[in-house]
Amino acid sequence: MSQTRIHSGLIEPDGGKLVELFVDESQRDLKRKEALNLPKIKLTKIDVEWVHVLSEGWASPLKGFMRESEFLQTLHFNSIRLEDGSVVNMSVPIVLAIDDSQKNQIDGSSSVALVVDGNNPIAILTDIEIYKHNKEERIARTWGTTAPGLPYVDEAITHSGNWLIGGDLKVIEPVKYHDGLDSFRLSPSELRDEFTRRNADAVFAFQLRNPVHNGHALLMIDTRRRLLEMGYKNPVLLLHPLGGYTKEDDVPLHWRMKQHEKVLEDGVLDPETTVLSIFPSPMHYAGPTEVQWHAKARINAGANFYIVGRDPAGMSHPLEKRDLYDADHGKKVLSMAPGLERLNILPFKVAAYDKTKNGMAFFDPSRPQDFIFISGTKMRTLAKTKESPPDGFMCPGGWKVLVEYYDSLDQAENGGVPA
Amino acid sequence: MSQTRIHSGLIEPDGGKLVELFVDESQRDLKRKEALNLPKIKLTKIDVEWVHVLSEGWASPLKGFMRESEFLQTLHFNSIRLEDGSVVNMSVPIVLAIDDSQKNQIDGSSSVALVVDGNNPIAILTDIEIYKHNKEERIARTWGTTAPGLPYVDEAITHSGNWLIGGDLKVIEPVKYHDGLDSFRLSPSELRDEFTRRNADAVFAFQLRNPVHNGHALLMIDTRRRLLEMGYKNPVLLLHPLGGYTKEDDVPLHWRMKQHEKVLEDGVLDPETTVLSIFPSPMHYAGPTEVQWHAKARINAGANFYIVGRDPAGMSHPLEKRDLYDADHGKKVLSMAPGLERLNILPFKVAAYDKTKNGMAFFDPSRPQDFIFISGTKMRTLAKTKESPPDGFMCPGGWKVLVEYYDSLDQAENGGVPA
Repeated sequence: MSQTRIHSGLIEPDGGKLVELFVDESQRDLKRKEALNLPKIKLTKIDVEWVHVLSEGWASPLKGFMRESEFLQTLHFNSIRLEDGSVVNMSVPIVLAIDDSQKNQIDGSSSVALVVDGNNPIAILTDIEIYKHNKEERIARTWGTTAPGLPYVDEAITHSGNWLIGGDLKVIEPVKYHDGLDSFRLSPSELRDEFTRRNADAVFAFQLRNPVHNGHALLMIDTRRRLLEMGYKNPVLLLHPLGGYTKEDDVPLHWRMKQHEKVLEDGVLDPETTVLSIFPSPMHYAGPTEVQWHAKARINAGANFYIVGRDPAGMSHPLEKRDLYDADHGKKVLSMAPGLERLNILPFKVAAYDKTKNGMAFFDPSRPQDFIFISGTKMRTLAKTKESPPDGFMCPGGWKVLVEYYDSLDQAENGGVPA
Repeated sequence: MSQTRIHSGLIEPDGGKLVELFVDESQRDLKRKEALNLPKIKLTKIDVEWVHVLSEGWASPLKGFMRESEFLQTLHFNSIRLEDGSVVNMSVPIVLAIDDSQKNQIDGSSSVALVVDGNNPIAILTDIEIYKHNKEERIARTWGTTAPGLPYVDEAITHSGNWLIGGDLKVIEPVKYHDGLDSFRLSPSELRDEFTRRNADAVFAFQLRNPVHNGHALLMIDTRRRLLEMGYKNPVLLLHPLGGYTKEDDVPLHWRMKQHEKVLEDGVLDPETTVLSIFPSPMHYAGPTEVQWHAKARINAGANFYIVGRDPAGMSHPLEKRDLYDADHGKKVLSMAPGLERLNILPFKVAAYDKTKNGMAFFDPSRPQDFIFISGTKMRTLAKTKESPPDGFMCPGGWKVLVEYYDSLDQAENGGVPA
């Protein structure tokens, strides 16, 4: 059922092979019929995103939603030991919650059907294991806090069932979103093909969930320069915005994608050496724990270099006036994480607006007075109030998209219809 | 400064050598003088217990209170990667907290003196590193909850300083308690010598913080039997009560030691094949996280088998009416824990009072009606009310000690002086 592909030249997937969990086309009708007779579990939007993630092998070598032994290793060790004794990184629980009545309905069945709207079965979970969903412990060990107001917790955990169901996943219907962006959703296997086609001898991944400004661009261009200096002939950038669940005040995916396309059109990044694709995972905002997942998944997609910045996957503490995580912990934890030894971690240099150059530049601590830091909040305020950012902060096409987005929000707030 | 010893035959200490952190006798006066000129940190009782633990190498290869990289690896991975790439288990932070004024007082000094009552320096911490003490994150990741009422948290974390200070520890004054029990406090090195002297070819450790009843004894005797069957010629039991901080309603160490001695005197356990010693660590009550520490420390003391029971290091949830940890998670986590692959985990069989045998026996699920489970709470109630437990539950000498202990409590409550 699970297909494996090996690409020579690129970094090996975790566990040695990429685990895809699709049912063969020839078997789909059969499996659909099989699913009709199984107990059904209705998936939430985030559950479907995880089915997507698992099905394409981003979490290789996971073969489905976690059973308890995988869940416990994830919570306690941020890694999973394989049968051969080797260790792969796995920092974020990929689990499926069910409630008491669903559990009762499953009764003694060893398989369940996973369904979306209209009871359409998209996958089967086999050899299932049902175990307790201790939400408090899961939250505490994943986020390092149990403070109310964590976005993913509010969205996907607090009101979820008291049981978790793990098992082997067989996906009948590959997940599609029909939002005009599916062509950007390359699977790890497709990305590996693309990197091979481009003869990439190094792949460096940049995870983002925000618009790209020239500081980001500078850093990506500089990374390529450094890799060339190291002797690589053709380093390729995987520009990899996260496409799953994000919190309400983040810029929505389709606006971000418009903005990223403009950045490529305006020539800020070179399309020849850049692959723009969508990473289908939902966002946890779990800082040092989550950044490991972001890095690990990119190994499976063929990246052997990972750029990490200040406070990755971080946010403000939901109750206290401070960042939830120490800004340096993400890169420190990443550099020590079990199972990520093969990945080259490239810590971010801080870029800021250099008034002497009218553009973004790496911050020079010997002349701090020359630099302006433009935070995400500041950027949003400028775009909302239609003020222009300093020249050279972002390419004009990209900036225009952001202004349009905040315009659409205003119209929505004033009773209009957002684009 | 750090001395190493290698004993052939016994399991290797973590990191390959036992790290003892005592200053050579000849250097002590020098170091005492040196300490006088250093900024001073006053230790709490629990801090002193950790100095004891570190100094004797229970936490080998740790060389002192954790620096940030060790602290982060402990919180996120329950293990630490060594320079040679190998991994040792380390699940519980061994850290020293200081407050803002202490931090200011240290200023630019690279070493500090650790003092107890009367400013008596017992150790020096060198090459120090001071970093933030994020208490919420430490608690959440160690206990899997931040609920108020965790005993160690209330005692040692909540009111501690906002900074942690790590560094290399040089102990000038080996920690002694002068409570009549110091002769039971064998260091890992002394235990290794004792096991070697006894020609042990297997050492199985039993961690406890409660009185020993015949169910425990049965299990320890049965373990020895199993080890003999496996072909070991002389398995030795390390009966290893925890001697550091425990919560208020646990039986105090000196009463427990009296009880354990009676168990040996009464011949329930064979003194020839049992080493009774005190494990100097304070107790976290952190369940699956802490049981790894309990096991790892015993590797350093020469044990290659570790007995693990139901809900090890567990307690009730401080707010909710349930156990804080799933009763099976301890042994599951222990069996998967990084750095403990070398240790043989022996899961507990459940023993209960068998009415057909008038004694403790392994529970037989085919005839549940024949068994009575006597919980710790039930045992305490019986001892307090001077009722006798069923014949064969505990040796009479051991039971008498418990009755005396609860008598002494009553006297104290009634204005008398406890023994």
